Amino acid sequence: MTYCVGLLLNDGMVLLSDTRTNAGLDNISTYRKMFTFEDPGERVIAIMTAGSLSVTQTTIARLREAVEDPESTEETSILKAPTLLKVADMVGNMLARVRGEIDEKLAVMEQGASASMIVAGQRRGGAMRLFLIYPEGNFIEATEDTPFLQIGEHKYGKPILDRVVKPSTSLADAQKAVLLSMDSTLRSNLSVGMPLDLAVIEKDALRVTQKRRIEAGDEQFRAMSEAWSKALRDGFVQINI
Amino acid sequence: MTYCVGLLLNDGMVLLSDTRTNAGLDNISTYRKMFTFEDPGERVIAIMTAGSLSVTQTTIARLREAVEDPESTEETSILKAPTLLKVADMVGNMLARVRGEIDEKLAVMEQGASASMIVAGQRRGGAMRLFLIYPEGNFIEATEDTPFLQIGEHKYGKPILDRVVKPSTSLADAQKAVLLSMDSTLRSNLSVGMPLDLAVIEKDALRVTQKRRIEAGDEQFRAMSEAWSKALRDGFVQINI
Repeated sequence: MTYCVGLLLNDGMVLLSDTRTNAGLDNISTYRKMFTFEDPGERVIAIMTAGSLSVTQTTIARLREAVEDPESTEETSILKAPTLLKVADMVGNMLARVRGEIDEKLAVMEQGASASMIVAGQRRGGAMRLFLIYPEGNFIEATEDTPFLQIGEHKYGKPILDRVVKPSTSLADAQKAVLLSMDSTLRSNLSVGMPLDLAVIEKDALRVTQKRRIEAGDEQFRAMSEAWSKALRDGFVQINI
Repeated sequence: MTYCVGLLLNDGMVLLSDTRTNAGLDNISTYRKMFTFEDPGERVIAIMTAGSLSVTQTTIARLREAVEDPESTEETSILKAPTLLKVADMVGNMLARVRGEIDEKLAVMEQGASASMIVAGQRRGGAMRLFLIYPEGNFIEATEDTPFLQIGEHKYGKPILDRVVKPSTSLADAQKAVLLSMDSTLRSNLSVGMPLDLAVIEKDALRVTQKRRIEAGDEQFRAMSEAWSKALRDGFVQINI
């Protein structure tokens, strides 16, 4: 499994993904699930992926191939698409196409493959936008009422987001919120694992303003995780019923 | 959906269930999901249910019918079974049989019905035992390492249990823990709803020592829920990353 979460806030977007991939419980590997595409000052796009690795890798590889193709057009390259809505559409179409191709191959085994994605981005002159792309290629968009989107193993980490994330949340608090949301998921579900990839895209920066890999032994993350456990236990002790 | 949780502690067992039942999103009702069977001083059994209402109601009704049958034997009545292990076995067999019957009826629609249960109990001279019964009738048992069992929508409420519940947890703290676990679930998932049924079975009491319905407007629950939200937000504010 996977856990990825994206926040759309007044000050920018904050993205966090884990890196655990497993084929069965006895075959666990580390794969990056966050991918960024930049034309600094013009456009920034980040994609996070969940689901069958063969689907997500092929989808990302084809999107990247199109971006790097010198003859790409606004119909083929997500860095040239006229709007972010069009980018979501292109990613959705590519995902659905790749899924279809792989499903066809797997049909002989009566199996199927599926994947979903979060797409975040901004182009010069446009608003920041955050989309969740479904395996079929359709998508939904984050709004003021629901300023976060999650894919993968999303339930364990939702209560903290429900409680603290609002569009006015600062980027510092937002990073804390997604890390704590991930921490709850890591503790309760083995199939989500370190290291983590964290990215911040500040409003109107039109580039990834911060990108950080948090390794398994990260002192800061461990301290935060322990402080949160302590805060929960202390809060628990103080409540009277 | 449903959320039920049972704790097996040194001092006793604590059980909590919601009451929301839905057939589709537009047909929501309230049904009790916690059922108790007592022969005070001799034996106490509590069952919580999740899944298809037609399966769980029929299963509980037949178990109760057998208990009330004056000619019941230790093979038919869960209040006469020689051990709690045998009780779990009987409940599992009844659940699997009822599920099979209903599945057969639904097969014409290419649908199926399923349900799972938590069984808690103690008989005179025996230990307290807590089981999770799967739809197929097999079961697992809570142990010192894993002193809680959940059925239904279990993920939202697991992080708090993972952090605070140990066999040595007091019955007062245990009630707080299951109520906060339920509170997280209620906030994040519409298909789990008030009122709640809470039961406490103290060790060696051989009866339900406390049984309480918590209604939607319950002041105490609301205050606890708000205090917990505040504790989480305060804890969140105090953490530095």
